[in-house]
Amino acid sequence: MRRIKLVIHYDGTGYHGWQRQPDHVTIQETIEAAMERLCGGRIELLGSSRTDAGVHAVGQVAHCDLESPIPACNLAQALNNLLPEDIVIAEAADADAAFDAIGDTKSKWYRYTICTEPVRPVLAIRHCWHRPGALDVEKMREAAAKLVGQKDFKSFAAAADQRQSSIRTILKCSVAREDSFIYTDVEADGFLYNMVRNIVGTLVEVGRGRWEPDYIDQILAAKDRSAAGPIAPACGLCLMEIHY
Amino acid sequence: MRRIKLVIHYDGTGYHGWQRQPDHVTIQETIEAAMERLCGGRIELLGSSRTDAGVHAVGQVAHCDLESPIPACNLAQALNNLLPEDIVIAEAADADAAFDAIGDTKSKWYRYTICTEPVRPVLAIRHCWHRPGALDVEKMREAAAKLVGQKDFKSFAAAADQRQSSIRTILKCSVAREDSFIYTDVEADGFLYNMVRNIVGTLVEVGRGRWEPDYIDQILAAKDRSAAGPIAPACGLCLMEIHY
Repeated sequence: MRRIKLVIHYDGTGYHGWQRQPDHVTIQETIEAAMERLCGGRIELLGSSRTDAGVHAVGQVAHCDLESPIPACNLAQALNNLLPEDIVIAEAADADAAFDAIGDTKSKWYRYTICTEPVRPVLAIRHCWHRPGALDVEKMREAAAKLVGQKDFKSFAAAADQRQSSIRTILKCSVAREDSFIYTDVEADGFLYNMVRNIVGTLVEVGRGRWEPDYIDQILAAKDRSAAGPIAPACGLCLMEIHY
Repeated sequence: MRRIKLVIHYDGTGYHGWQRQPDHVTIQETIEAAMERLCGGRIELLGSSRTDAGVHAVGQVAHCDLESPIPACNLAQALNNLLPEDIVIAEAADADAAFDAIGDTKSKWYRYTICTEPVRPVLAIRHCWHRPGALDVEKMREAAAKLVGQKDFKSFAAAADQRQSSIRTILKCSVAREDSFIYTDVEADGFLYNMVRNIVGTLVEVGRGRWEPDYIDQILAAKDRSAAGPIAPACGLCLMEIHY
């Protein structure tokens, strides 16, 4: 048995998220099926992030164990020939037997894209939240800065989140505008369920003038999902990089 | 009756081109159906460019005649609520009764996008030709410059092209690189069938070293489709602007 580390990119539009589940097509099962066809046997792929339905990735990392002697440099190419065009293995490499794509994760970086153009951006519509209308990026930036650090993010977690502790450390939370696109980049040592989308939905409430940036302190203190803004749509979210 | 001018954007991936045809879903019929639902009666939409299956547009122009008194400023919004998310009416305005979206066209600008990244660009794959490997952009530029002017482009027209004259004037033909993307912009007073895609396929032959830029002169002189390079795939092509 050899441990393999994979870097995976996908357009999540047509998938019910990363994680295998009954009655829905997922990224994990699609890649596992290609690996099983190529290498034989049952293969389990463990991905660092369980991205939701409709969420994209250009830096998902996963590991699996293989019996097959296929050189790692040929594995990506062979898998890509079997995979649909909206999923690609960007890198495949032999890894230390102890490498754990989930457990060894130090931090993850997600990017959320908003398009403020009045006209529906037909060529980008699968990869952004189309929200016409002005947003005050300077105020969004002030609000984003208040989220950086080790804090209890319970107000930004889906009520369904079962994890015991809602304390996480956000290393970076920045907002940048480029023409009519607004990019929110969030890097943290871990994320609660729907945390980035709830953060972006909240920053948009600040950007449109409903809340002042200082209101973020009250949202954090409330430790209650209903204190924060509405969830931003999945299609604007992309997993950019996992750091080990 | 009022004449209406429309500017239309679409992702052509899911359509069999602009022009209405039996047994295939097209952009023209999709918009006509939305207009008929909104305004009643039979409405014919005449588009400046009959883009092929899989070709995109962010500047198609069309005209139609309406009996409906709906203000033009509300027409786009109302149509967009009925249209699928990969088609949008970017502008709708009352036009001179003599305005002819096809006949009044002075020139058209198309952009062709090539991605040379080794890894399949999953988030751009619907809108580019993924062609890994180095291309000499400087030589492609030299070759492109040789196409500018009034010339007989018979070698770059699909054999199926029925038009009498194959003489057209290319006003601009430029090649630009941005990271791993190469953009070819072609503006002309008119295009023969598959002309841009045949030009790009030929420029790629130059870029990969099969032909020197000077060879373009021989291709033009041959007036024979088989003298030029292979056709580039439809998904990389986008109609950018129609000039009147």
